[in-house]
Amino acid sequence: MTALMSAAELEQALRAVGAERYHNRHPFHGLLHGGKLDRRQVQAWALNRYYYQCRIPQKDAALMARTEDRELRRVWRQRLVDHDGAGPGEGGIERWLRLTTDLGLDRNYVISTAGVLPGVRYAVDAYIAFVRDRTLLEAVASSLTEIFSPAIISERVAGMLANYDFITRETLAYFNARLDQAPRDADFALDYVRRHARTPEQQHAAIAALTFKCDLLWAQLDALHHAYVTPGQVPPGAFGWSG
Amino acid sequence: MTALMSAAELEQALRAVGAERYHNRHPFHGLLHGGKLDRRQVQAWALNRYYYQCRIPQKDAALMARTEDRELRRVWRQRLVDHDGAGPGEGGIERWLRLTTDLGLDRNYVISTAGVLPGVRYAVDAYIAFVRDRTLLEAVASSLTEIFSPAIISERVAGMLANYDFITRETLAYFNARLDQAPRDADFALDYVRRHARTPEQQHAAIAALTFKCDLLWAQLDALHHAYVTPGQVPPGAFGWSG
Repeated sequence: MTALMSAAELEQALRAVGAERYHNRHPFHGLLHGGKLDRRQVQAWALNRYYYQCRIPQKDAALMARTEDRELRRVWRQRLVDHDGAGPGEGGIERWLRLTTDLGLDRNYVISTAGVLPGVRYAVDAYIAFVRDRTLLEAVASSLTEIFSPAIISERVAGMLANYDFITRETLAYFNARLDQAPRDADFALDYVRRHARTPEQQHAAIAALTFKCDLLWAQLDALHHAYVTPGQVPPGAFGWSG
Repeated sequence: MTALMSAAELEQALRAVGAERYHNRHPFHGLLHGGKLDRRQVQAWALNRYYYQCRIPQKDAALMARTEDRELRRVWRQRLVDHDGAGPGEGGIERWLRLTTDLGLDRNYVISTAGVLPGVRYAVDAYIAFVRDRTLLEAVASSLTEIFSPAIISERVAGMLANYDFITRETLAYFNARLDQAPRDADFALDYVRRHARTPEQQHAAIAALTFKCDLLWAQLDALHHAYVTPGQVPPGAFGWSG
């Protein structure tokens, strides 16, 4: 087992995981942000990513169900407000549906998740199971990809606006909200992990949890890349399958 | 299997469960409300009931983690706000701690749950497991004891104020808040169960879920009664144990 790190060293190790494995480095995102995809491929991305979006509140509720810490629950609850909305027709999931609708996808088809790639589904479901079954520290640490998301969002919004005439600033409203929400959430979770990973084993588990999370984001893009980037191999039943 | 009931018949059957099994009929509550307990016994009740109070948000988060219905999650979220508070120092759990503190119990000892009767702990833990593992309909139906709580709360507040000189209106602030919250929650859950229990099997499961919930509230009072009502038999380690 490695030695106990200081909190600053642990943070450095966590940031190194992101630098190496966060999905901004995946080739699919290079194509997406660089204007190299056609409208159908962008649709496929938004449709599949909806599955991740709509399951996030269940993941966050699973985390809250595990903790006896009222303060942690109260802070974490804001994530449910952000995604499910303060009221009907609000929130991140609704904003994601704005994106898929603007891209020309049928709202009910998206919500049904019928066209989602099995590989994407398994990756997201693995995330929920991880948060439900592992230690609370690992559950919190797995959220730390938020540290890296403002950079990719800025890149994405600029790239997609510049490169696709079917994308407007309103289409991407989801991401503007996340630019404020993600750093707030990441700061809290990083502080939590720094304070609660107090043994080498716990520090190792926190790093492994973040690695796991990076892997599952990456796996979603692998599935998209394989299915929809030339020569795409769409699996039976998924969006765009020709039968 | 019994025949399909109308929604009104189902509601009637659910109300009949409460009329027969809700814990307002338990002898311990008769003693509590009638001024027949001493301060130590009232302390034991408040201390043990804290375990139920503090676990309720985990139960509600477990329910939210199970559903893909954003609307249901959004409405149910209010329960977490009610119990955990809109901000620090607020909410139902904090108000329950006001009660235990006013009764002369050490706040940290209460929060530690170290003195809780094992029988109470098992009953509450069984509730959380039920909500996590059964169908969503059963999870919602198990909350329907809220239908019956305003009556017992009114009786409790009046009885305790009249009968105990160590109880003030401020001590019982928890219950005043519940008089507004419980009917709102019960109306929503009852409407949900009426709409979603659409087969005889589902109706039977909903009735059984409410029966299960009544049983676990009752079991908590059985444990209290056995341990603290003359001749009380306090189990090892629990509040008031003399070793």
